[in-house]
Amino acid sequence: MEITEIVKNFFESAQWVKEPVGLYEPIDYALQSGGKRLRPTLVLMAVKLFGENPEKYVREAAAMEVFHNFTLLHDDVMDNADIRRGRPTVCRKWNDNTAILSGDAMLIRAYQMFSGLANSQYKKAVELFSKIAIEVCEGQQYDSDFEHRQDVTEEEYFNMVRLKTGVLLAGSLKMGAMLAGADDEDAENLYEYGINVGIAFQIWDDYLDCYGDEKTFGKKPGGDIACGKRTYLLIQALKRGGVSQQLTLKQLIDNESILPDNKFEAVMGIYEQLGMSNVCQEAMDEFYNKAIGALKKIKKSDEEKMPFVEFAKKLMGRTY
Amino acid sequence: MEITEIVKNFFESAQWVKEPVGLYEPIDYALQSGGKRLRPTLVLMAVKLFGENPEKYVREAAAMEVFHNFTLLHDDVMDNADIRRGRPTVCRKWNDNTAILSGDAMLIRAYQMFSGLANSQYKKAVELFSKIAIEVCEGQQYDSDFEHRQDVTEEEYFNMVRLKTGVLLAGSLKMGAMLAGADDEDAENLYEYGINVGIAFQIWDDYLDCYGDEKTFGKKPGGDIACGKRTYLLIQALKRGGVSQQLTLKQLIDNESILPDNKFEAVMGIYEQLGMSNVCQEAMDEFYNKAIGALKKIKKSDEEKMPFVEFAKKLMGRTY
Repeated sequence: MEITEIVKNFFESAQWVKEPVGLYEPIDYALQSGGKRLRPTLVLMAVKLFGENPEKYVREAAAMEVFHNFTLLHDDVMDNADIRRGRPTVCRKWNDNTAILSGDAMLIRAYQMFSGLANSQYKKAVELFSKIAIEVCEGQQYDSDFEHRQDVTEEEYFNMVRLKTGVLLAGSLKMGAMLAGADDEDAENLYEYGINVGIAFQIWDDYLDCYGDEKTFGKKPGGDIACGKRTYLLIQALKRGGVSQQLTLKQLIDNESILPDNKFEAVMGIYEQLGMSNVCQEAMDEFYNKAIGALKKIKKSDEEKMPFVEFAKKLMGRTY
Repeated sequence: MEITEIVKNFFESAQWVKEPVGLYEPIDYALQSGGKRLRPTLVLMAVKLFGENPEKYVREAAAMEVFHNFTLLHDDVMDNADIRRGRPTVCRKWNDNTAILSGDAMLIRAYQMFSGLANSQYKKAVELFSKIAIEVCEGQQYDSDFEHRQDVTEEEYFNMVRLKTGVLLAGSLKMGAMLAGADDEDAENLYEYGINVGIAFQIWDDYLDCYGDEKTFGKKPGGDIACGKRTYLLIQALKRGGVSQQLTLKQLIDNESILPDNKFEAVMGIYEQLGMSNVCQEAMDEFYNKAIGALKKIKKSDEEKMPFVEFAKKLMGRTY
């Protein structure tokens, strides 16, 4: 069976609801809402790469998706978000308290999904899981901290994105490698691949919010600019712009009295002057190449590694 | 060293703060705020009872306190609480988002505190911890559900209290028993002792909120009545009262237009008529006796088990 099928089947047949339903129904709602389920797919791609049967580890792979959705439940409370995957967020459909408590239960359920592993593998997997989980919290904290700062450096941005996005993708790959008994060097290289793919993916996401097309992107561009998010484009523009461009940007980004459309137009004007589209493309190329470089070091055939090349391309909308 | 000293020393020397400080300082603040630290004390009392050195398992014991404080951070957001242990709650001193995210990190840190255990013990301990943790969430959910209901039965109340309060006390004892290698029967009896002590403790807490004295209780009585909490007294009064007493109570408890002091006086009037003070005392006696009964079955000397008798008495303010 294809890996995406294995993951899909697991979530379609999983029973999340039991008493008290007020705690478990929101978990079911979140996990049945689809999404790309990238993280369990990455776990099982790694399991397969290192010669194990992906079906054997679907529960542990799914734990990464349950964890990811726990972060979404809490993030949506913190961001006061209305919509997630085209449906009301848990904090809207129910309320903030439900999203907090059901989120907590999801984090614990994710831990429980490793229970099928034998003692030694169990400890390795759960410790890796905890390390990933706490780093994602750290990334989220840095992201919140940045909201109040206009002097975020490129280095700080990359560190935040590594923690908030990269670590969970890379950690899912490492989890799969570990479960399948890969050697440490291969597991580390696959992790390195994941970190770089994750950073490139975040730059792509930042890019699309400015240059994306609503039809293919799925949401209207400009959200990040409207809420003053510290994106790769903003940080680069603040670094590369002349004094007057920097000043204008700083005055624009946290000014809530300017209409979103006007703010978008003004910021985009500066991004155009500074060629931010090319800057993003170059940065993505750089991280993509780093990712492929790490992948090449893994002691497996090009053919076996091909799905990871395709995954990286797909994730950043590459068609070449 | 005394067990309370071992626990105190651990928390006084523990370093919780690192980067990003916005995530970890609230954790330090919560864990340095004192409190009775009952749960780690119970873990180590059980470790000692079954013949192991308590100092060996102080980290695992402390994990139960870190978990307990995680629940407090999130509970305070959900209850919109201002004060905890005489100081501003994390959600007040910082904000709700901080209390949510730092709470999440605390839950993960609690899991990480089992890392010193060897594979087989690690798996047992972490699985027990997850079971306790998810049941506490279930108890919290039932408690929230009850807010919207006036027909909560005695059985439902006991089940909620068992999950919300009993399981963490009993689970801490079971954790200690397990770490020290107690046999399953002894561990189960100690768990049973903990559940019953926990229920008695909650009835005592409900009782004090009506009949307590501000000086010895530490907070002004009447908080539960003011917010319409489904306490043991309320559930029993609704069960035992005549038709007109039931009707009056139902009209009073969720009526937000009545001044708290007036509501307290009116509700207390009915409690007096129904002799609720005695009803509570009898129920506490019942659970206390069940706890002591379970304790007696444990294959240890009366002298070795004496600290558990004293603990139970102390927890419900008994001096006889």
